[in-house]
Amino acid sequence: MSQRKIILEKVDQAIGILREKDVDLWLTFVRETSQLNDPSMSLIVSPDLQMTWHSAFILTKRGERIAIVGRYDADNIKQTGAYKEVIGYDQSIRQPLVEVLKRLDPGCIAINYSESDPSSDGLTHGMWTQLFRLLEGTPYASRFISSESVIGALRGRKSKSEVDRVRAAVKETQTIFDEVTAFLRPGRKETDIRDFIHDRMVDRGLTTAWEMEFCPIVNTHPDSPIGHGAPGEFKAARGHTVHIDFGVSKDGFVSDLQHMWYLLDKGETLPPAEVQKGFDTVRAAIMAAAKELKPGALGWEVDKAARDVVVKAGFPEYQHATGHHVGRTAHDGATVLGPRWERYGESINGEIEVGNIFTLELGVEVPNRGYIGLEEDVLVTATGLDWLSKPQTELTCV
Amino acid sequence: MSQRKIILEKVDQAIGILREKDVDLWLTFVRETSQLNDPSMSLIVSPDLQMTWHSAFILTKRGERIAIVGRYDADNIKQTGAYKEVIGYDQSIRQPLVEVLKRLDPGCIAINYSESDPSSDGLTHGMWTQLFRLLEGTPYASRFISSESVIGALRGRKSKSEVDRVRAAVKETQTIFDEVTAFLRPGRKETDIRDFIHDRMVDRGLTTAWEMEFCPIVNTHPDSPIGHGAPGEFKAARGHTVHIDFGVSKDGFVSDLQHMWYLLDKGETLPPAEVQKGFDTVRAAIMAAAKELKPGALGWEVDKAARDVVVKAGFPEYQHATGHHVGRTAHDGATVLGPRWERYGESINGEIEVGNIFTLELGVEVPNRGYIGLEEDVLVTATGLDWLSKPQTELTCV
Repeated sequence: MSQRKIILEKVDQAIGILREKDVDLWLTFVRETSQLNDPSMSLIVSPDLQMTWHSAFILTKRGERIAIVGRYDADNIKQTGAYKEVIGYDQSIRQPLVEVLKRLDPGCIAINYSESDPSSDGLTHGMWTQLFRLLEGTPYASRFISSESVIGALRGRKSKSEVDRVRAAVKETQTIFDEVTAFLRPGRKETDIRDFIHDRMVDRGLTTAWEMEFCPIVNTHPDSPIGHGAPGEFKAARGHTVHIDFGVSKDGFVSDLQHMWYLLDKGETLPPAEVQKGFDTVRAAIMAAAKELKPGALGWEVDKAARDVVVKAGFPEYQHATGHHVGRTAHDGATVLGPRWERYGESINGEIEVGNIFTLELGVEVPNRGYIGLEEDVLVTATGLDWLSKPQTELTCV
Repeated sequence: MSQRKIILEKVDQAIGILREKDVDLWLTFVRETSQLNDPSMSLIVSPDLQMTWHSAFILTKRGERIAIVGRYDADNIKQTGAYKEVIGYDQSIRQPLVEVLKRLDPGCIAINYSESDPSSDGLTHGMWTQLFRLLEGTPYASRFISSESVIGALRGRKSKSEVDRVRAAVKETQTIFDEVTAFLRPGRKETDIRDFIHDRMVDRGLTTAWEMEFCPIVNTHPDSPIGHGAPGEFKAARGHTVHIDFGVSKDGFVSDLQHMWYLLDKGETLPPAEVQKGFDTVRAAIMAAAKELKPGALGWEVDKAARDVVVKAGFPEYQHATGHHVGRTAHDGATVLGPRWERYGESINGEIEVGNIFTLELGVEVPNRGYIGLEEDVLVTATGLDWLSKPQTELTCV
């Protein structure tokens, strides 16, 4: 299915969500998207098209699909096929926008901003104040609500073609992990491993799931910084773990996975007890989260299940969320499986829904051995979890 | 000079601008920049780094350079060398942010939003409301002003290394135009010409200045849509003009140029009078704008000089601005050389400054012959204009 057809599918889905949530009208208001692109553009307009002038994309629960765009952008929007009415303007969007709103007279207008969900927060503050100015003398600005629940549902409930694409990206990533197993040996630097992964990726016509400098993250040493750092000069060595966090982008959708290796020391046939305990704890925590991850559960409940396992095992609490949506991007917005910390705002109070694809990810540090982190990608279905990745159940020993 | 050094240069320049404009503190507040990246990030932090959690970049007129970022991003920010104090946090940015503001106690705080300048409008509305919530119980939110004048000056006043980079991108583009002249003949489709240009570009290790699908724009026929459309099936033919709007990205900086060809008809040694008149009008209008483009002039005054020439020559008024900044992006924010239409807001009231690089661009349609548009890139200096492109003074006849 082409990207264009996925857009048509998502616009239909959006109208269904507006009905379900009883939202009269959803307005996505953007400008100069080459500078700053509302993440919703790739959901309901196009992953490629960029708007120069102020543009309004309007969907209603009655099924209207209206775009108001600069004259030079009108043909491109018509060609998407997603908007039945495309209005081009020259000097100001004010008149066509007010006319359309008067004609539709919505009781509530969902606008593209959100405190908690970056993927639903495409409207800048300057555009917000402009919108009030454009609508002066009308009652419409007083009817604004946030469109976060609409966008969250639309982005989070993956269609079959979206799931297929994430699944394909996951499969490619795990094939590359298998190739890393064959490549890995003592003395390989983090940057060697990164270069190897990039070469395999380019061979397959793939790109990275997030900025290339930090994708993959590779940790080969207990002192290698954990988090968002670029691979460095540390070398893989016997008796240490190797941790890789990596994802690819394929046909507009991405994967986000972590895998663990251990380099057996001389005389070892199995990892030492403390390494095995670390791995088992991480694995048990991920399974605990997986058990909670079902329709109707809240984001923080899933997080808590995993976090409790790690803390009870005596490891320090990890300082990030247990999972996030994955789809068009590695951090695909909406509900986060995270703790109730201010940083996460309301995002952790969202409900898990059928069709959601989440990462499940966490890790522990084992002194003198290295970091142990796992991350799987899973699809929530009505009847249980569908593991898009083949979950890692044992340390890969080299 | 590396991108890293350019960042250090721009941060120094920013502190000078804060002094000049008597702005106590400039706060750039961002989060999850892989979803939506404030255009100022590539000016004062990094063109590559992406922030996951709420991050605050603080520069003051006294010279303080402070970054407050998520714990996992702290090392990356330290490595930029641009921030003397880098504070990492775990659960919420509130406490470190409030503490820093209390310590600095600024009388006014310039915030990254703007109604008129998309390049200065990186703060989302959701982030704006969050910032108020974070600063509850302090006087700081009441001291907010827009940072548009700071960002406009910083982005618009190009340093020597920035100018050199744009100049290099312009040169590459004009070399490719010369190659197009050799390639062009009747029967070449717009898509053929686009493919040829992309091949030449890739050969040189360059990328497009804006989204590849619409870069270049190619018009080979009077019916070919003008504006932001992708090249289509129209073919170059004798007696018609060929118009290309194209730019490349090289080392993080771009060009944005238009060039004109005419395919001589059988028996012609010169373009027909109406084509020549169209070209001469466009050329004269660009020269009229160039004459006005000097430090202290306002954006709309430069536009008016060019627009009057076109209208007086009897052509319809073009429905876009006569020019815009060019630099890291093809539409590089701040002052626009445009008419006083609502669409342009306050952006056309900005003053031209030394160090600005502008496009000068406009066109006319000649019935049955095709579109005639030119675009040059020029640097404003204290003593006059420096044409970064070799301006087109005659139609290139094929």
